[in-house]
Amino acid sequence: MPAKSMEELVALCKRRGFIFQTNEIYGGLQGLFDYGPLGVELKNNLKQAWWRSMVYERDDIEGLDAAILTNPEVLKQSGHEETFTDPLVDCRSCNSRWRADHLEKSACPSCGSKDLTEPRPFNLMFKTNVGPIDDGTSFAYLRPETAQQTFTNFKNVVDSTSKNLPFGIAQIGKAFRNEVTPRNFIFRVREMEQMELEFFVKPGTDEEWHQFWVKNRLSWWSKQGVSEEKLDLYDVPNKELAHYSKSTIDIMYKFPHGLEELEGVANRTDFDLKAHSNASGENLSIFDDKTNQHITPYVIEPSSGVDRAVMALLVDAYNEEEITSASGKTETRVLLKLDPSISPVKVAVLPLSRNEKLTPLAKSVFDTLRKSNLIGGHVQYDDAQSIGRRYRRQDEIGTPLCVTVDFDSLDDNAVTIRERDTMEQTRVSLETLESDLALKLKS
Amino acid sequence: MPAKSMEELVALCKRRGFIFQTNEIYGGLQGLFDYGPLGVELKNNLKQAWWRSMVYERDDIEGLDAAILTNPEVLKQSGHEETFTDPLVDCRSCNSRWRADHLEKSACPSCGSKDLTEPRPFNLMFKTNVGPIDDGTSFAYLRPETAQQTFTNFKNVVDSTSKNLPFGIAQIGKAFRNEVTPRNFIFRVREMEQMELEFFVKPGTDEEWHQFWVKNRLSWWSKQGVSEEKLDLYDVPNKELAHYSKSTIDIMYKFPHGLEELEGVANRTDFDLKAHSNASGENLSIFDDKTNQHITPYVIEPSSGVDRAVMALLVDAYNEEEITSASGKTETRVLLKLDPSISPVKVAVLPLSRNEKLTPLAKSVFDTLRKSNLIGGHVQYDDAQSIGRRYRRQDEIGTPLCVTVDFDSLDDNAVTIRERDTMEQTRVSLETLESDLALKLKS
Repeated sequence: MPAKSMEELVALCKRRGFIFQTNEIYGGLQGLFDYGPLGVELKNNLKQAWWRSMVYERDDIEGLDAAILTNPEVLKQSGHEETFTDPLVDCRSCNSRWRADHLEKSACPSCGSKDLTEPRPFNLMFKTNVGPIDDGTSFAYLRPETAQQTFTNFKNVVDSTSKNLPFGIAQIGKAFRNEVTPRNFIFRVREMEQMELEFFVKPGTDEEWHQFWVKNRLSWWSKQGVSEEKLDLYDVPNKELAHYSKSTIDIMYKFPHGLEELEGVANRTDFDLKAHSNASGENLSIFDDKTNQHITPYVIEPSSGVDRAVMALLVDAYNEEEITSASGKTETRVLLKLDPSISPVKVAVLPLSRNEKLTPLAKSVFDTLRKSNLIGGHVQYDDAQSIGRRYRRQDEIGTPLCVTVDFDSLDDNAVTIRERDTMEQTRVSLETLESDLALKLKS
Repeated sequence: MPAKSMEELVALCKRRGFIFQTNEIYGGLQGLFDYGPLGVELKNNLKQAWWRSMVYERDDIEGLDAAILTNPEVLKQSGHEETFTDPLVDCRSCNSRWRADHLEKSACPSCGSKDLTEPRPFNLMFKTNVGPIDDGTSFAYLRPETAQQTFTNFKNVVDSTSKNLPFGIAQIGKAFRNEVTPRNFIFRVREMEQMELEFFVKPGTDEEWHQFWVKNRLSWWSKQGVSEEKLDLYDVPNKELAHYSKSTIDIMYKFPHGLEELEGVANRTDFDLKAHSNASGENLSIFDDKTNQHITPYVIEPSSGVDRAVMALLVDAYNEEEITSASGKTETRVLLKLDPSISPVKVAVLPLSRNEKLTPLAKSVFDTLRKSNLIGGHVQYDDAQSIGRRYRRQDEIGTPLCVTVDFDSLDDNAVTIRERDTMEQTRVSLETLESDLALKLKS
């Protein structure tokens, strides 16, 4: 998708209520975004699909939801205080600051001066004072990843669930990074949501499990509707590896601004559990009843950012088609070809017009569908503007199915199902409508 | 429930994996908790029930999910910089600090000294530096309520959804308050989750809508399994009202530590929208096509804390029963009588014992159920320890139904459903198991 379309997509996101700049009426806050009525549904659908595939459909993974504010000792011992940094340069001329590895020329992007300092490490963690005494001794970090709270809860989870190796702990939640130069819409942001699995395995089986999770995650992204030809793998070279990683394979996606990481699958070894064991004095190992030994497991971590995943899904789904209208005119149809499981609205109920006879029937159809377990998602009622414009609107927001209630419906007790991708229309009886829709949503 | 049981409940929460102290291995961090494998399911079930009842089952409410980091101007204009405070006193003897209205005697709880300062206002908002320059000019607050981002997005939501009055915007998300003395387990915490609805109405209809939402929310809490006799209403007197409120009715719950607020339903008037309109220059009104006028709506806000709601649900569900075992011994059965829609685990599949013939059948039953849309929640497999101990464990975590696979199952193709509250057992065919369970979960 060309850059032109990226701007169109950002405009669509605002116009239709997917994503807004945060605090926009006050000029915004860089690198921060709010999810509107449709965005929150899309994001929740994605998060729930991940949770189902991890926690419900497997029997070796438990869930967790930990606090954002984190004891500094945790992030000291994990190595984040020392190494979670980006290289920063100052412009000596205008005092602005820049991320050294993002500079395209060796000149200040603001004033053009070439008088820049040498790069120095800038820590990306946000901190905040906690409690009533503000003398710098009592502060917390906003977690830079959900993973560390998974490690500090390792013993609690093992003790309360009696798990044996291999097993995993899954967490979805906010993480924060004080990016020097947030950019590319919701790709590089200061407040993000993560979906992270820490999968604990016996040392020696870690490389095999690493391969397993790369394959598993790659096929999962395809199932969510990401085009396979836009996905790629990147074996991170040693010099680029994070301090805890033995090996990391990134699942890359062809974003409009380039091939970038969608998810990282890292072999974190026993680095974190050992570091926290040593520092806290708590034994973070697990008893293996086959060898009668206490083992400190290795960790395989598939970690993805929800926001950039939302961006990938939207970019991938965005389509423009030339179609010929009934009057013979050629026009452009914009549609989001989202997988129905991800679409913010599953079904839209549209009376042909606002009419005292059609409205009660359409409302009763709507009432049945929005409470339906079979459909299990957001159903919308829309009776504003012409039916053609309403179809276009539903196409633009990725609604897979529209149900049109027309004057014939009053006689034949049937309605029309209109499909987003093919624009095909099928007449179905009201009696089978719910199950017909459910079937189409799954196919 | 007596205080003794509160301690037992906290112990159960840790032992079974509902709630852990955060960063416990490093001594914790006051007023912060992590939700374990069962806690996260319970919390998600509650949040999803709220979302369904607000966004899916009504057609006048839209969802939103905004950023936590907030432009300080928003919270200056909302009045939070000036008034979101608690009264703080210093002990001149040991320099400790206390919340004045929580002191039981006029003496320091730490050293006993009576030499305390006069109370002064202490602002409860956390702040953090944003961007690479740390000179105090560029900071954000961690939002103290989700509501303000709903107000700053008012125009975006109206423009993208074409809503007319009355309509609402619903949001679930984290909020942060630097409580001076966090206490009572997860009741008063520094990082909480909120479920907030801002419902926009025509001025003049606000008092009627206020009453509507009080009734609506009261009945909703009952539906989630909160005992009606433990709920009460508190009409907040004028001198206790927040600066934005014309009238607030709190829905109170008899917590073990006293009658306290579970949810507040406030009439916020047009205070926030007017304040943000004036300060930002953006017109936060809505066009009313009946009167052809731009109206700044009044706001009715039902706002509840997810964490204290989880606590209410657990406290309410906690039961101890004396039962007589098969051998004639009297023993105590601990059970959580959670509503099935809230229970972390819906169904547990238990083979009578670990046996090479039983295991494959039990696993295949488990496989069918955990992917079932009819059951639509977490299904657990448990084959450790005796069947009696496993029933006790499922009782303690509030699982409404256990499915037991025994040796007869191999012949009669049937299994036993055991109900948590009555301990009644029913033999059902595997062919109807899924629908039988779904029916029992709904009744």
